[in-house]
Amino acid sequence: MSELICFCRNAYMPLQTAAIPVNDLGLQRGYGIFDFLRVSDGVPLFLEDHLDRFIFSAEQMRLSAGYNKQELEKIIQTLIQQNGLQHAGIRILLTGGPSPDGYTISAPVLSVIEQPMAPPADEILKPGFRLIMHPHRRQFAAVKTTDYLMAVWLQPQVKASGADDVLYHLEGQISECPRSNIFMVNEAGALITPHQHILPGITRKQLLQVAQAMGMTVEQRIITPEELLTAKEVFITSSTKRLIPVYAIDEHLYASYTDDSVTGKLYRAFMEHEKIYKEQRKLLADS
Amino acid sequence: MSELICFCRNAYMPLQTAAIPVNDLGLQRGYGIFDFLRVSDGVPLFLEDHLDRFIFSAEQMRLSAGYNKQELEKIIQTLIQQNGLQHAGIRILLTGGPSPDGYTISAPVLSVIEQPMAPPADEILKPGFRLIMHPHRRQFAAVKTTDYLMAVWLQPQVKASGADDVLYHLEGQISECPRSNIFMVNEAGALITPHQHILPGITRKQLLQVAQAMGMTVEQRIITPEELLTAKEVFITSSTKRLIPVYAIDEHLYASYTDDSVTGKLYRAFMEHEKIYKEQRKLLADS
Repeated sequence: MSELICFCRNAYMPLQTAAIPVNDLGLQRGYGIFDFLRVSDGVPLFLEDHLDRFIFSAEQMRLSAGYNKQELEKIIQTLIQQNGLQHAGIRILLTGGPSPDGYTISAPVLSVIEQPMAPPADEILKPGFRLIMHPHRRQFAAVKTTDYLMAVWLQPQVKASGADDVLYHLEGQISECPRSNIFMVNEAGALITPHQHILPGITRKQLLQVAQAMGMTVEQRIITPEELLTAKEVFITSSTKRLIPVYAIDEHLYASYTDDSVTGKLYRAFMEHEKIYKEQRKLLADS
Repeated sequence: MSELICFCRNAYMPLQTAAIPVNDLGLQRGYGIFDFLRVSDGVPLFLEDHLDRFIFSAEQMRLSAGYNKQELEKIIQTLIQQNGLQHAGIRILLTGGPSPDGYTISAPVLSVIEQPMAPPADEILKPGFRLIMHPHRRQFAAVKTTDYLMAVWLQPQVKASGADDVLYHLEGQISECPRSNIFMVNEAGALITPHQHILPGITRKQLLQVAQAMGMTVEQRIITPEELLTAKEVFITSSTKRLIPVYAIDEHLYASYTDDSVTGKLYRAFMEHEKIYKEQRKLLADS
């Protein structure tokens, strides 16, 4: 395999040589934002949404990206063309940059990295994920900051409990998994997902559109841990994995995933939605 | 001035060339811990305490430092000798390291940086600092993580209010400033400082010893925002600045600093304490 190229500190370079000066606020003060998107058959999925969110995150954290959306798209397209990966993940990282006093933002630094990533497989549906609950809420929850202290720290605990991921809750509200949004389907068949203290996921957004187009009742509101126990189905969404059924939260077991469940129907509809996006984007590129 | 040397990724190198690969968890996931100490007349102040806290932080965050206290002390002494700085700050940084999956800790990376820093001047006593309150509590508060998202983000707000720093409080308890501990002296002359949701500062620890040796009543306990308003004197402590009187918190004004205040007496006693530490350490080094 040929060497992967990335974009770092205003230049294209081999990924292996890309490094950030040790005085960057991203390292010294954990000050940074990012976004992550999946490339499928060479197409950057839901690119506009990811770029919008990246720009929003930068603005919220008072970081000047130094590149507008058109320029970012061009960098991403260049990496896709140069690296020739059909299935990959692209990470756009903006850190606080070198700081003379180790505290004040001066010139933020942009890095864009592409790495190979297998497309999510249908096998993830069975048995799906077991989650454990943990009392936590991300600071600046609506912003995709690089703050994953709690998530990374909890990893050994997640593995030791035989779980796959953690679900944050606080003050009687469930919010999100560290890298996914959570949804429940209630007895009446409504699709419900928390509306606050969450990162507004792109797969979440796209799935809500799909569900609405299917005529489902969609509710974005507070979910308590108690209500979650009454759910008929639970699943999580992420750009990396699409939809993953949840078969257990702590000791509570949900019915096993079946293809004719609401989750199954949404999964297939989302696959179709993704396919249409790719076709449209390819048509656009060819025109 | 000759080029400064630092220690990064297991080697001494010019500070200007020190960089961390872009896939380090310290950058991608804000996952890192550090410590910071002041060098005065070539002596690393309260080095044992700082190394103890660094090792504690690393253990708490499940990071293997890869170097024990003796080895860290040797690196620090080498930097002090090589760089020949009489007054400086030393930053010991341990980040999560390169991660193949961008999430799991594999091999943490140590960097030790020395940079010139003027010794704190008596001028800081007058008028001292104005603080603004902000509702926040650091996650992993007892650990010196690199998470300063809120602190860096608040900087423009602090400056716009004509303040010098921010004081965190939550759920009826004041805790700390982002880089300092807070103390109050009450009407009865007792020295009071919060005991929880704080980073246990080294200057805080040393000052409590000094105050006890002076026969002062010392209380480590919850302070409410209401009690703080009744304080006769308020000051903050940090390794960089020693003691700084606080003359205002939000709109509340405290009496101006005078040399015969409790804060003044503690300041002079701490200066003496620091001097004795330096002399003892020099004697030790010569023997």
